[in-house]
Amino acid sequence: MAATEHSLFAAGLARSAAEVEARLALHLDRAGAAGTPPRLLAAMRHAVLAGGKRFRPFLVLEMARLLGGREAVADAIDVAAALECLHAYSLVHDDLPAMDNDELRRGQPTVWKAFDEWTAILAGDALLTLAFEILAGNASSGNVSAPGLPPAIRANLVARLAAAAGPAGMVGGQMLDLEAEKLGEPASPDEQHVRRLQGMKTGALIAFAAEAGAIAAAGSSEAVVAARTYGEAIGLAFQISDDLLDVTGDVATVGKAVGKDLALGKATLVAVAGVETARAHLAAAVDKAIAALAPFGDAADPLRQAALFQLEREH
Amino acid sequence: MAATEHSLFAAGLARSAAEVEARLALHLDRAGAAGTPPRLLAAMRHAVLAGGKRFRPFLVLEMARLLGGREAVADAIDVAAALECLHAYSLVHDDLPAMDNDELRRGQPTVWKAFDEWTAILAGDALLTLAFEILAGNASSGNVSAPGLPPAIRANLVARLAAAAGPAGMVGGQMLDLEAEKLGEPASPDEQHVRRLQGMKTGALIAFAAEAGAIAAAGSSEAVVAARTYGEAIGLAFQISDDLLDVTGDVATVGKAVGKDLALGKATLVAVAGVETARAHLAAAVDKAIAALAPFGDAADPLRQAALFQLEREH
Repeated sequence: MAATEHSLFAAGLARSAAEVEARLALHLDRAGAAGTPPRLLAAMRHAVLAGGKRFRPFLVLEMARLLGGREAVADAIDVAAALECLHAYSLVHDDLPAMDNDELRRGQPTVWKAFDEWTAILAGDALLTLAFEILAGNASSGNVSAPGLPPAIRANLVARLAAAAGPAGMVGGQMLDLEAEKLGEPASPDEQHVRRLQGMKTGALIAFAAEAGAIAAAGSSEAVVAARTYGEAIGLAFQISDDLLDVTGDVATVGKAVGKDLALGKATLVAVAGVETARAHLAAAVDKAIAALAPFGDAADPLRQAALFQLEREH
Repeated sequence: MAATEHSLFAAGLARSAAEVEARLALHLDRAGAAGTPPRLLAAMRHAVLAGGKRFRPFLVLEMARLLGGREAVADAIDVAAALECLHAYSLVHDDLPAMDNDELRRGQPTVWKAFDEWTAILAGDALLTLAFEILAGNASSGNVSAPGLPPAIRANLVARLAAAAGPAGMVGGQMLDLEAEKLGEPASPDEQHVRRLQGMKTGALIAFAAEAGAIAAAGSSEAVVAARTYGEAIGLAFQISDDLLDVTGDVATVGKAVGKDLALGKATLVAVAGVETARAHLAAAVDKAIAALAPFGDAADPLRQAALFQLEREH
């Protein structure tokens, strides 16, 4: 496949990462000032500030920019920060010995390895809780949240994020993943099962990212629906490309163990349908994501490139 | 000490428990209908519906009743349900082998013992997330939440609950508790340290319960302040009476291991200051709680009795 132009995506990713990391640093400093014990704060920083592509914040902020410009991005920055805290918590808990038992994440020791299990459990709990505090806005006098988002939008976003991340969303998807790995259930997962699992585990939060950016920008209901359709499709593409990387990737580039999903018997699309079928599904999901952006014209090019990039991911 | 009259407290507790349990059952059924995997849902039910005194829901609902009558109680029921989900999550995670390693809770196997560690970690994560979904109200069409609470109050309550439960609140208190137990830090905890730890670990959520009931009832700012003062004082009293029960209680009555806190080297008020000093602090906290109720007249008698009851707790 010919190399595609990704420069707008790359620039948007870098800009979103810088913006969300500055905001996360502010919220963590504030948690420290509020009385968070130092060991807990250090573990939270380890989880949140140790890099990562910041793909979800990119989706939030780029969609807000597309629909509402600079002002909407300022309003949406806490949505992006909250989402990244929530994503970080999910990785900290997934890496635990009782879960995926991973020692390496982004080339660094995982939180339980750098600290210990109980600190990692609590750091994950703290990040999940902090995500909702950031999203709801600080109710007391020292409000550091973007003042622009009205309370009705905040309550709406909290409910949607919780639904995407909760027992019928991300946590439920992780449950299905571990049932396959640890209990061998179901004995023969089919493609439908894998799609449900991945839609819950990864897709729900990525779909929320794009949708939340549109909601934070007070987009029209048509724009919010288009954003969600885009988010669902790119979430699926992201998951399939992740599965493909597990079998075709290179440990130095990927920054974590490769071939592990397959060895663990995880239910992935590659495992149940093979590499070629997975690639076909990936291409279809990318097409769907790009089709959803049709109403937005050239200004949506960074989001278009983000979708196309899933075809060529190397990490 | 002479036996005190507790009949209004006992009746209020029974009524609140019935109301919140019905509501919790509804929310768990709904999580199942939304696609929560059966094993995860079973673990969540085990954690939430296996009894407990429902003391925090009592505080929410009784304060709402005091300030706003029956209608306010209907509006506040989801606040109580959310708080109980959050409390249940904290117990599920606290009981884990890597944390307190408890096998028994309310006379039943703990979640990790009845299921396994990974299921318990995920069930706790799911309950914490569900708490915020319930509190924010379901944003989509199938809204089962009390329609009465306006979005601004919901966003305010989410922010306050997250602050009370997060890294500078409950999770931070659990961190300090485990640092004492597992790392022996600080080497010689003083009374100030213990009060800070307990205020974060237990006090913050109990104070939130009383305050949230007042906020949900749209109480005046004076009433909200009085509710919070009451909540902070009864939270302190509750924690001290819990510490006293650990050394003076009876396993059959308490329903969990006794003497364990002391044996584990936990930083409790009894450990640093002795039984008699702890009893004096308990009496002072109960007095403060009752004083905060002065503006509310006889209608506050169930809440007064709840405070007095802390002097005579046996479980």
